[in-house]
Amino acid sequence: MKNIAVLGSTGSIGRQTLDVIRQSDEEQFSVFALCADSNAELLAEQANEFKPSVVSIAHANKYQELKDRLNYSPDIVVGNNAANLCGGHEKVDLVVNAVSGVAGFKAVSLALYKGKIIASANKESIIYLHSLRNALESGTSPMITANDSLRIIPIDSEQSAIFQLIEGDPENNSIFDRSSIENIILTASGGPFYNTPIEDMKHITVNDALKHPTWSMGKKITIDSATLFNKGLEILEAAALFGLGADKIEVVIHPQSVVHSMVRFVDGNVKALLSVPDMRGAIQYALTYPKRRKRIIDRLDFSNLNLSFLAPDYKKFPALCLAYEALREGRVLPVVYTAANEKAVEMFVNGQTGFLDIAKRVEYAMGKSYCNKISPDAIIEIDKLARAYAAEWKG
Amino acid sequence: MKNIAVLGSTGSIGRQTLDVIRQSDEEQFSVFALCADSNAELLAEQANEFKPSVVSIAHANKYQELKDRLNYSPDIVVGNNAANLCGGHEKVDLVVNAVSGVAGFKAVSLALYKGKIIASANKESIIYLHSLRNALESGTSPMITANDSLRIIPIDSEQSAIFQLIEGDPENNSIFDRSSIENIILTASGGPFYNTPIEDMKHITVNDALKHPTWSMGKKITIDSATLFNKGLEILEAAALFGLGADKIEVVIHPQSVVHSMVRFVDGNVKALLSVPDMRGAIQYALTYPKRRKRIIDRLDFSNLNLSFLAPDYKKFPALCLAYEALREGRVLPVVYTAANEKAVEMFVNGQTGFLDIAKRVEYAMGKSYCNKISPDAIIEIDKLARAYAAEWKG
Repeated sequence: MKNIAVLGSTGSIGRQTLDVIRQSDEEQFSVFALCADSNAELLAEQANEFKPSVVSIAHANKYQELKDRLNYSPDIVVGNNAANLCGGHEKVDLVVNAVSGVAGFKAVSLALYKGKIIASANKESIIYLHSLRNALESGTSPMITANDSLRIIPIDSEQSAIFQLIEGDPENNSIFDRSSIENIILTASGGPFYNTPIEDMKHITVNDALKHPTWSMGKKITIDSATLFNKGLEILEAAALFGLGADKIEVVIHPQSVVHSMVRFVDGNVKALLSVPDMRGAIQYALTYPKRRKRIIDRLDFSNLNLSFLAPDYKKFPALCLAYEALREGRVLPVVYTAANEKAVEMFVNGQTGFLDIAKRVEYAMGKSYCNKISPDAIIEIDKLARAYAAEWKG
Repeated sequence: MKNIAVLGSTGSIGRQTLDVIRQSDEEQFSVFALCADSNAELLAEQANEFKPSVVSIAHANKYQELKDRLNYSPDIVVGNNAANLCGGHEKVDLVVNAVSGVAGFKAVSLALYKGKIIASANKESIIYLHSLRNALESGTSPMITANDSLRIIPIDSEQSAIFQLIEGDPENNSIFDRSSIENIILTASGGPFYNTPIEDMKHITVNDALKHPTWSMGKKITIDSATLFNKGLEILEAAALFGLGADKIEVVIHPQSVVHSMVRFVDGNVKALLSVPDMRGAIQYALTYPKRRKRIIDRLDFSNLNLSFLAPDYKKFPALCLAYEALREGRVLPVVYTAANEKAVEMFVNGQTGFLDIAKRVEYAMGKSYCNKISPDAIIEIDKLARAYAAEWKG
């Protein structure tokens, strides 16, 4: 029985995580803590179903609503540090980091420090932690290793695919020997505007961008998927998780989202991971690892399936080139890329900037100078500064 | 340095094996023996290049031609047992079984007995050995296991794909634990007649059938590829190699031959192995296993790739249903299926029977009674009898 804390339980990944647990055998998982930002109504509903010992909400003004809606009496934790406390609780075995954006960073840092295993759907925290590690330790060591230090299992379908393709028995170190790997190939759906002419892209509105073809996701990640910043963040995340340089990560457009990613070996063989596009597959894998459990997603049907692959259009989607540039620097720029994009997306969603300006704001922020001494506090400073620069860009 | 004996060196797989060795670093392989059936000219040319210590030819009347064409003085072995002697030689580490058809069975039996590792492109010997094992031991144990008894590495691209997808470190037994596997999916190009209406198929000639779309292969396997008996044999071979029942083996038509096969896991994830369609990829993997070496095949390019998958047409291609039927019986019928098909293909190539009659001859032979006590000698008897029944069918 694994005791699970779900950070961000009311978001898209959080809800799907609970659905995976709902459909699993009862003796597999126990939900110990549910943590949300502000959606007291859904959080209470989830808590009443799963009866976690701890329920937390970041927005203190939602405390009373939450308490009123609960039909039992768990510990209720309130405020900005609530998720940290839940993730680090001594009774928790596995923390699902389903928080959106950079907010996931602090909670995960603490949970890792406390020795928890993290099932992570949050790219930003992985990128920040790796920038920190790159500054403190060696630059290319993977965050996922196969020995006792395996503490992060990716939930992102692409990273989960890579993980599944190169993982073996977790007790067997040698499987993580990457000398046989030429590169990894991250697949990208291309988003809703892949075929939109570049001259029409500047008119894209928030509503246009919130229609994503294959996955059901939150707002931030849906915009990122349309700009391909999502794939840029995954480039940085994969580099962190698997200890890969920019020359080891390829991106391929694959509109059907059936092949979740691939590993290319030095001898010309390529391994691919496929399933129906349903995030619950990767979530279940992260929760049940190192075992595989009975399918809760649909069976992939090959009786009439077409899969296509295309080279990315780097001109239309500068997010990719900027990510490679950030990765080559490896310390400050991955943080700047991540934070500046988060700010620019926020501005786009609020109608304060155009679709194509998101990348321009990130590029502008990446061109600025930042403190070179990296520490946990410095990362938070760089993050703030990058957001400020992203906001200040005038075109 | 691996000392290699190539049985069937002048055939398609044999020639490609030597090309792999030619393109590998010199210190990796030494060709100890080359064995051919009757092509003295090519055999001598190969021997003069690779300078094996032993050269053997089955047809005794080719001895003088072979000797005259050699520009050095290896041991020359002649006759039906020549390949057996080469494969079993004490100096040989790895035997490449590139013999076509049932002829490969005896040589491999001896080489296995002598403790050699077999890189096998010969389905028939695997099927016969497994029928024998099924009779002597338990019915479903795999011929490939991950401990010291790993003695067979498949060269067939489909079996190599499955092997690569489920293998891990060869010292790690647990990777061969198949409880997480729902089934395997063998891909089939469909052959040149996949879209031919069934009423036109009876007019297919030998020349029509010898045009295969993607792979360069020998005559027998090309006809098998057009009838889908090749896939039927692979069903039986996969069952033998990996210890799988009929309900664990799925066949999917995939005309591009880029996905070589797949493994479907219980949780809905599917792993696929891809490369450009070039047999030398699987040959190299078998020779260098457990390491992967530098690519000698073309790089798979995803910048403009389309892959399609279809359900097989079991009515047009009865070879598949007959294979499942043979597998369910598991002892005599796999041998009958294999031998009767070999005879029927021989008759088709000689203009003695029609294309669609190949399957009818096999079905007829499978309906007959055979001795139930299986031994090495009995298998040879069943093989002969099945060929006789296949020949006797009148329609």
